[in-house]
Amino acid sequence: MNNFRELSRKKLKQRGVQIDDIVALVYELQKDFCPTLAKETCLQAVNDVLEKREVAFAILTGIELDLGAENNQLNEINDVIKDDYSLYGIDEILALSIVNVHGSIALTNFGFLDKTKPGIIGNLEEEGKQKDKCHTFLDDIVCAIVSSAASKVAHDYENKKVL
Amino acid sequence: MNNFRELSRKKLKQRGVQIDDIVALVYELQKDFCPTLAKETCLQAVNDVLEKREVAFAILTGIELDLGAENNQLNEINDVIKDDYSLYGIDEILALSIVNVHGSIALTNFGFLDKTKPGIIGNLEEEGKQKDKCHTFLDDIVCAIVSSAASKVAHDYENKKVL
Amino acid sequence: MNNFRELSRKKLKQRGVQIDDIVALVYELQKDFCPTLAKETCLQAVNDVLEKREVAFAILTGIELDLGAENNQLNEINDVIKDDYSLYGIDEILALSIVNVHGSIALTNFGFLDKTKPGIIGNLEEEGKQKDKCHTFLDDIVCAIVSSAASKVAHDYENKKVL
Amino acid sequence: MNNFRELSRKKLKQRGVQIDDIVALVYELQKDFCPTLAKETCLQAVNDVLEKREVAFAILTGIELDLGAENNQLNEINDVIKDDYSLYGIDEILALSIVNVHGSIALTNFGFLDKTKPGIIGNLEEEGKQKDKCHTFLDDIVCAIVSSAASKVAHDYENKKVL
Repeated sequence: MNNFRELSRKKLKQRGVQIDDIVALVYELQKDFCPTLAKETCLQAVNDVLEKREVAFAILTGIELDLGAENNQLNEINDVIKDDYSLYGIDEILALSIVNVHGSIALTNFGFLDKTKPGIIGNLEEEGKQKDKCHTFLDDIVCAIVSSAASKVAHDYENKKVL
Repeated sequence: MNNFRELSRKKLKQRGVQIDDIVALVYELQKDFCPTLAKETCLQAVNDVLEKREVAFAILTGIELDLGAENNQLNEINDVIKDDYSLYGIDEILALSIVNVHGSIALTNFGFLDKTKPGIIGNLEEEGKQKDKCHTFLDDIVCAIVSSAASKVAHDYENKKVL
Repeated sequence: MNNFRELSRKKLKQRGVQIDDIVALVYELQKDFCPTLAKETCLQAVNDVLEKREVAFAILTGIELDLGAENNQLNEINDVIKDDYSLYGIDEILALSIVNVHGSIALTNFGFLDKTKPGIIGNLEEEGKQKDKCHTFLDDIVCAIVSSAASKVAHDYENKKVL
Repeated sequence: MNNFRELSRKKLKQRGVQIDDIVALVYELQKDFCPTLAKETCLQAVNDVLEKREVAFAILTGIELDLGAENNQLNEINDVIKDDYSLYGIDEILALSIVNVHGSIALTNFGFLDKTKPGIIGNLEEEGKQKDKCHTFLDDIVCAIVSSAASKVAHDYENKKVL
C-alpha cells in the first residue's frame, strides 16, 4: 500500500501538479480564518491527505481515465471525458471520495474551488482544453486535495485553540 | 404528504425567505450558461425542488432546530447552533439531503453559494448574528434549494438542446 | 444524450446483465413493504433510473474500467481493480453517483445488497473471480440500479397511498 | 470541544446505549474478515470514532430531536419523527455525517445494519415503538458508529498486514 501512495504522488507530478501548488491554495483558503497559519502547517495537512488509501486510489483511477481519453483508448465515453462535458459528473463524484472523508468544510470548499478555479486548478483546466491533453478528472482531484487539506487545517487550528 | 409540502413553503415564508429571492439566485447562477434562460424557467425548477418529499422534511427539520436554538429550548447544543459555530457541520449535512438528490452540479454550486453568500443567503446570515435570531440551518437550506434548482435548469436546458 | 442512454443499456447486456435480473431483485426488495406490487411497476422504476444522465455515464465509465482491467490495459491500478481489492473503494463511490440522486432509502438498500449479494449481483461477483473476467465496478453498479429503483417504488407507492 | 465529546458519550448512555453493545456489533461484523481480531481492537476503533467532532455533534443533535419528539415539543414534524415514518430520511442523513468521514466500507456496512438491525440496534427500534419513546435518530446513529468503527478495524488490519 505504501507503494500506491508513492505512485499517486509520482503520477501527480508527471501530470504537472507540484505539491507546492497545492500548498499555496490551501494557505490562500485558510489564511483569513487562521491568522497565525504557517505554510509548513498546510504542507503537513496536504501530506496527511495524500497518506490516505482512498486518496491514492482516487488519484490513480482519475489519471488513468484522463490518460485513456487523451490517447483515444476509451470506448463510448472517450469524447465526453476528453471534452470535459459539463454534465458528465463522474469526475466530481470521484473527487468526492476524497472530500467526503474530510467532513463538511471540505465539501463547501470543494464547490467553491470547482467554480472559481484559482491557481493550478485553472491552469489544469486551460491546458486540458488543448487537443492532445485531458485533465477532466485531475482538476477535480486537485480541488478535492486542496479542500480536504484546508478542512484539516481548520479542524487542527480549532483543536489547538479550544482544548 | 401534500400537507408537508405546503407547510414547508409556509415555514420558509414565516422565516423571511420569499420564493422570488430563491428564483433570483438561480437565475444569476445559470444565466451565463443558458443564454436564453427565462425567470419563469427558474421558478418552475424551484417549484420542482420544493415538490420533493426529502426537501420538505429537510426544511421543516432545519427550521425546527433554528427555532429551538432561538428560543433557548435545546440542551447541550443550543449555543453551538445559535452561534453558528463554524465546525458544527450538521447544518451543511442536512442541506446535503436536498443537494444530493440533484446531482453533482448541485453539489459544486452549493459549496460556491455557501462560501460567497449572495442575496438572501447573506441577508439570512447577517440577521442570524442578532442575539435573538438563529438561521444556522436555514441559510444552508436556501443554498441547497438554489443550487438544486440551478442544477435542474442546467440539465433541462441541455436535454432540450441535444435530444 | 439519448444515445448514451441506449449505449449504457446495450453495454449492460453485453456484460451479462439483463433488465429482468434487475427487476427481479427490485421486486424481492420491495414486495413485503408494498403488498400489491406488480413486476410491471418495478420494470417502470428500473427504466426511470436508466433514463437519468448520471446513471448512463456511471454505467459506461464503470464498465470501461472493468474492461480495461480485464484486458490488462490499465497502469498502476490494473491488479487492484482486477482482483476486486476490498479496500479499493472507488467502485462503491462510482455506484453512489447513481444511489445519491435517489435518496436515503436507495442508500440503505445499496449497502444491504452489497453485503448480501442476491441473484445477478452474486453471479457477477463469482464470474468476476475468474482469471479473465472483471466485474469490480459492474456488480456495484447493479446494486445501485436495484436499490435506486426500489427507492422509487417505495416513494411512488407512498405517494399513491397518502395523496 | 472535549466537553462535547464527553457529553455525547454521556447522552448515549442516558438513552440506553452502552459502549459494550457497540463493540459487540463491530466484532460481529469484522471477525470473519480479520481472523485474529480482538475485542480490545474493536473498542479502540469505537473510541476513535467517538473522538471526532462531527460524531459528537451528530449524536447530540439526533438525540435532541428524539427527545423533542418524545416530549411532543416539536412542531409540524413531531409525529413524523415520533412514528419513525419510513420515508422521513433525515435520520439516515444525519447518521451519514458520521459514516461519510469513514469511507466506503463504512457506508455499505451502514446500509446492511440499517436493514438487518442486529443487537442493540433492533432493541432501540423495538423500544422506540412504545408510545412514550422515540429512537428514530438514535438507532441510525448507532448503525453509523458501528459501521464506521468496523471500517476503521478493516483498514487498520490491512495496514498492518501489507505495510
